[in-house]
Amino acid sequence: MANSKFEYVRNFEQTDSLLPNTWIVVRVDGRAFTKMCAKYGFEKPNDRRALDLMNAAAKAVVTDLPEAMIAYGVSDEYSFVFHKSCNLFERRASKLVSTIVSTFTANYVYSWPICFPGTPLSFPLPTFDGRAVCYPSLQNLRDYLSWRQVDCHINNLYNTTFWSLIQLGGLDNKEAERILAGTLAAEKNEILFSKFHINYNNEPEIFKKGSVIFRDYELVDPDSHAVALEMDDLAEPLQQSKTQVEKDKKKRAKARVVVEHIDLIKDEFWDKRPWILSNKPGKVPKEP
Amino acid sequence: MANSKFEYVRNFEQTDSLLPNTWIVVRVDGRAFTKMCAKYGFEKPNDRRALDLMNAAAKAVVTDLPEAMIAYGVSDEYSFVFHKSCNLFERRASKLVSTIVSTFTANYVYSWPICFPGTPLSFPLPTFDGRAVCYPSLQNLRDYLSWRQVDCHINNLYNTTFWSLIQLGGLDNKEAERILAGTLAAEKNEILFSKFHINYNNEPEIFKKGSVIFRDYELVDPDSHAVALEMDDLAEPLQQSKTQVEKDKKKRAKARVVVEHIDLIKDEFWDKRPWILSNKPGKVPKEP
Amino acid sequence: MANSKFEYVRNFEQTDSLLPNTWIVVRVDGRAFTKMCAKYGFEKPNDRRALDLMNAAAKAVVTDLPEAMIAYGVSDEYSFVFHKSCNLFERRASKLVSTIVSTFTANYVYSWPICFPGTPLSFPLPTFDGRAVCYPSLQNLRDYLSWRQVDCHINNLYNTTFWSLIQLGGLDNKEAERILAGTLAAEKNEILFSKFHINYNNEPEIFKKGSVIFRDYELVDPDSHAVALEMDDLAEPLQQSKTQVEKDKKKRAKARVVVEHIDLIKDEFWDKRPWILSNKPGKVPKEP
Amino acid sequence: MANSKFEYVRNFEQTDSLLPNTWIVVRVDGRAFTKMCAKYGFEKPNDRRALDLMNAAAKAVVTDLPEAMIAYGVSDEYSFVFHKSCNLFERRASKLVSTIVSTFTANYVYSWPICFPGTPLSFPLPTFDGRAVCYPSLQNLRDYLSWRQVDCHINNLYNTTFWSLIQLGGLDNKEAERILAGTLAAEKNEILFSKFHINYNNEPEIFKKGSVIFRDYELVDPDSHAVALEMDDLAEPLQQSKTQVEKDKKKRAKARVVVEHIDLIKDEFWDKRPWILSNKPGKVPKEP
Repeated sequence: MANSKFEYVRNFEQTDSLLPNTWIVVRVDGRAFTKMCAKYGFEKPNDRRALDLMNAAAKAVVTDLPEAMIAYGVSDEYSFVFHKSCNLFERRASKLVSTIVSTFTANYVYSWPICFPGTPLSFPLPTFDGRAVCYPSLQNLRDYLSWRQVDCHINNLYNTTFWSLIQLGGLDNKEAERILAGTLAAEKNEILFSKFHINYNNEPEIFKKGSVIFRDYELVDPDSHAVALEMDDLAEPLQQSKTQVEKDKKKRAKARVVVEHIDLIKDEFWDKRPWILSNKPGKVPKEP
Repeated sequence: MANSKFEYVRNFEQTDSLLPNTWIVVRVDGRAFTKMCAKYGFEKPNDRRALDLMNAAAKAVVTDLPEAMIAYGVSDEYSFVFHKSCNLFERRASKLVSTIVSTFTANYVYSWPICFPGTPLSFPLPTFDGRAVCYPSLQNLRDYLSWRQVDCHINNLYNTTFWSLIQLGGLDNKEAERILAGTLAAEKNEILFSKFHINYNNEPEIFKKGSVIFRDYELVDPDSHAVALEMDDLAEPLQQSKTQVEKDKKKRAKARVVVEHIDLIKDEFWDKRPWILSNKPGKVPKEP
Repeated sequence: MANSKFEYVRNFEQTDSLLPNTWIVVRVDGRAFTKMCAKYGFEKPNDRRALDLMNAAAKAVVTDLPEAMIAYGVSDEYSFVFHKSCNLFERRASKLVSTIVSTFTANYVYSWPICFPGTPLSFPLPTFDGRAVCYPSLQNLRDYLSWRQVDCHINNLYNTTFWSLIQLGGLDNKEAERILAGTLAAEKNEILFSKFHINYNNEPEIFKKGSVIFRDYELVDPDSHAVALEMDDLAEPLQQSKTQVEKDKKKRAKARVVVEHIDLIKDEFWDKRPWILSNKPGKVPKEP
Repeated sequence: MANSKFEYVRNFEQTDSLLPNTWIVVRVDGRAFTKMCAKYGFEKPNDRRALDLMNAAAKAVVTDLPEAMIAYGVSDEYSFVFHKSCNLFERRASKLVSTIVSTFTANYVYSWPICFPGTPLSFPLPTFDGRAVCYPSLQNLRDYLSWRQVDCHINNLYNTTFWSLIQLGGLDNKEAERILAGTLAAEKNEILFSKFHINYNNEPEIFKKGSVIFRDYELVDPDSHAVALEMDDLAEPLQQSKTQVEKDKKKRAKARVVVEHIDLIKDEFWDKRPWILSNKPGKVPKEP
C-alpha cells in the first residue's frame, strides 16, 4: 500500500532555522504559576523548595544538552544560552525550544516528590512554555542576562518588603501595595530595616541574585596569556570540525555542572571563566 | 534601580504567529526512543503499556487544552489538531508547540509508574520534541491524518511480520530483513498466515489503526439537516465572539474525552462527528 | 584562487517560502505619491493619465508573468493575485515581491512619456514598494479584493465631493474637511447633486470601481456543466505535471490581457470567468 | 458605507522584521540577463556601457536612501549594505528589498538612453530581483563583500581569457571551454600573456575589482585618536536619538556619493574610512 498519495503534506512544513553566528537564548516560563503557588502552598515571598526544583530541572537540561553553555533562573523562569557557533538541531527554533521545554518539564515533574515530599502533584500538572531569541553580539547577550538579574533583584526587594509588611507587619495586600507604591530601592531597604530589623543585604543570595548554572572548570586569571588565546576563538570562522565538536562534547561531559548564586552583570564572572564565551571546555579542577 | 538600560533586549524577540484560517497540527515525537525501548525493555513489535502511556499523556493534552479538536497517535508520535478558526495564544508557534510538548511530557513522566509498575524511570528521562505545521484546506488536513494512519498500517504490518519471523520463526534480524525486502502487503499477510497462522486482520485495532482522541458527543446522521447547518460554520467569517468562545469552552469541558482506534481516512468518521470540523461542541450523549 | 574561505556567508540566507495551497497577493504601493502628485501636477481628485500609466505598468506585469491570474488597481496601488497552486519561484516571498515591483517600476518609468508627454521625469524617480500576503481560502481572497474595491469607492466618493467643494464651491481644504466630517455616503451624494448637479453614478467607472486586469477568454454560462467540471479543479491535489504547466503557459500567452472597470464583489464576475479560479486557461474568444 | 466586513483580511499580513543589530545586505540581481546581453548586443567579456548603467542606478539608490552605507556591484548584481544600527522601515524585509529594487530599476530604465544611445529598450523591459540577508558580525559582513569581490576577480579572469581565445584566438566556445577546464589563475594569466600579449594586471580596475559606492569624506589616518573614538560607536547601545538620526541624515545628504574600483578585502579601505562602519558622517573634504 503506497503512502505517496498523502505524502505531499510534508511540503507544508516550513523551516525555522535561527540566524547563524548569533547567541541563542531559550527561555522557559512556568504556565499559570500564580495558581500553582496557591494550589501547592508555596511560601511567600520565596519558596526554597520550588527554587531547588527549578534548579534541579535546569541542571538536568544543561547536563543532557552539553551545548547549553550557561543558564540563568529566577522565580518560575529559566534562560538557557547556546553559543553563537552552536549548530545543535541545525538551529531549528521549534526543535530547540521543544526539546529544552520537554527536558525541563520531565525533570520538574520527576523531581517534584524529592523537593515536595508529602505534597503529591495532581492534575492539571505543572507545565512550561518557551521561546527562542537570537542575540547578535556578546554585549546583547550579556545585557539580556543582566536584564533578568536586575529584574530578579527589583522583584525580590519589592516582594520581600511587601510580604514583611503583611506577614510581620499585619497589613493586608492593599495596604502593603499602597505603602510601596512609588518607593525607591533605598526606601524599601529602610522599611525593611526600621520596621522589621531586616538587612536586605543579608538575605540569601539565591533570592537576591537568582541561580546560574554552568560547567565548572578551573578559574582563570583574567590577565593571563591563556585567556587572550581563548578569546581569540570568539573571532570567526566559527565552524568547528566534527571531530573537534565530538572531542569537546566528551570533555564537557566530564565537567561538573554547578548551580551558583552570583553576579552576572559585572565583568568579573565572565573574565574568570573564559571557557563560557570561547565555547571551549576549560581545565577540569583537581579534586580536593 | 531602573531596568531600562537593559530592557532594549526585548526588541530582539520576533513574532512567529501562524497564518490565520489554517488548520494547525502540532506533532510531538519521542526523542531517541529506540534507545528508550531498549533501556526499558519495550515489547516488540508493539508494547501495549507504552501505547497506553502515550494515550494517557495525549488525553491529558486534549483535556487541558480544549482547543485541541482531535489528536492522532502512533508509535512514539502524537499529532494534535487545532481548528482553523482557533486563536489560542494568538497562534504563536513557539507558545503552542512548547505548551503542548510540556503538557505531554509532564503527563508521560507522571503516569509512567501507572503504566510501567516496577520499572522506575532513570536519567536521562524520556523527552519529546515538537513542531507546528499549517494546513490551508480541510483536504490537506485530512490528507495529513491519512498519511499518518497509512504510515501506521505500513509500519505495523512490516513490524508484525518482521518480529514474527524472529520471535516465532527463529530468524535473526538480517535474515528477517532480507526476506521482507521488496515484499508487498499481500505477501507479508501471506507469510504471517502460512508460517505463523496469524491473520493480520485479527490483530488489535490499536496496533493497526493507531489511536484517535476527541471529545465524545452524540453521533449524528450525516444526511440530517442539522449537519448541513453545522457545516455552514465552516464558511467564513471565522471570528467568534469572545462570549461564544467561552460558552463553547465550558460545553467542551463537560464532554468526555475518548480514545478510539478507528479509521480516519474514509469520510464516515467525519460525517458522523460534524462537531469536529465545525468546531462547535455537539450534544453530550445521555448516560446509559 | 579559491573562494571557499568566504563562501560560508551563503549560509546566512534564510528561506522565505510562502505556505503552499494559499492564494498569494502581492500588493505594490507608490512611495511618497502625495509628493509625486504635487511635483508633476496630477489632477484632483483623479488624474486619468496617472491611472492609465498604473494600468499600463500592471498590464505589463500580468503579460510578463502569466502566473498572475488577476490584478486589481486603485489610486497608486496594485494587487497581483497568484493561484493557490502557483509554484512560481518556489513561492519565495522576496523573489516574488521584488520581481513584480521591478517589472511594475520598469514599465511605469518607461511608459511615463507616453502618458505624460511634455512632463519629463526628474530625480528622485517614482518608485514603489511591495509585500506578499497569503490567503488560505477563496473567500479570504475575494474578501481581500472586495476590501480594496470598497475602499476605492469610499475614497472616490469622498474625494469627488471634497474637490468639488474646493474646485467648484470655492472652499478651502479645511472648510471642505469640516463639511464632510462624519457624513454618510447618501449625504455626500446629496451634496454633489444639490450643490454641483453632479450625479455620482455617472462618474467614470474607472474612478468608481478601479481597474481589473485579467486574461480574456470566452465568457461562460455559470450554470453550465462545463463550469462545474472546471471548478472541480479547485479541489486537491493541486500539483500539476510540468507538461501541463508548460501547455497552460502557452495557452495563456495567446490570450489577450484586458483592463476593465467592473464589480469584483458580487459573484457574477467570478461565475462568468471560471478560468480565473480554476487556473485553467479558458477558450480564446473568436475574433469579431 | 462601512468597510469593516472585509477589513479582517488585514490580519493575514505577517511581520518580516529583520533581527536588530545585524548588518543588512540587500542584493539586487538582473533577471534573465544572459538573454538581455544577447538582445542588446552587450560586448564580451565586459560591456562598459552596461556597467556604467548599473553604477548609475546603484548611485541613485545610495543617494535616495542615505541609510545605505556602502554598495558593491559586479556584472548584473549589486549589494547594498545597511548599518547594523539602521532602523529604516523598521527593518521590514519586504519593504527594504522592494524599495531598493524599485529605485534601482527605475533608474536603470530611466538612464538607459544615456548609456545606450541609439539602442532603445523594448518589451519585456530589463528587471531585477532582490533579497535581504542579515550578517551578525562585522567579520561576516566583510567576508560577504570579499566573497563578491573574489567572485568578480575569478569570473573576470576566466571571461577575459575565454573571450580572448574566441575573439583573438579564433576558437569556438567549446574549444575555449575545453582549454580552460581545470586551469589555475596562473595558467590563465600565462595564456593571456603568451598568446595575446595581454597583461591581466593592466586590465581596467572596474573589470577586475568591480565597483564600490559610498559617501566621500576626508580620509583618515587609521592610527589616529579620532578613529579610535569613532569606532567606539560600534559598541552598544545602538539606538540613536531621533534628533541625531535626522542631523546625520542631513550631513550625509551633503556628502558626495562616489563610485570607485578598489580593494575591499584588505583592511586598508576600512581603516581609512572609519565613518562607514561607525555609521557617523565624516568630514566633508574641502573643495580643491
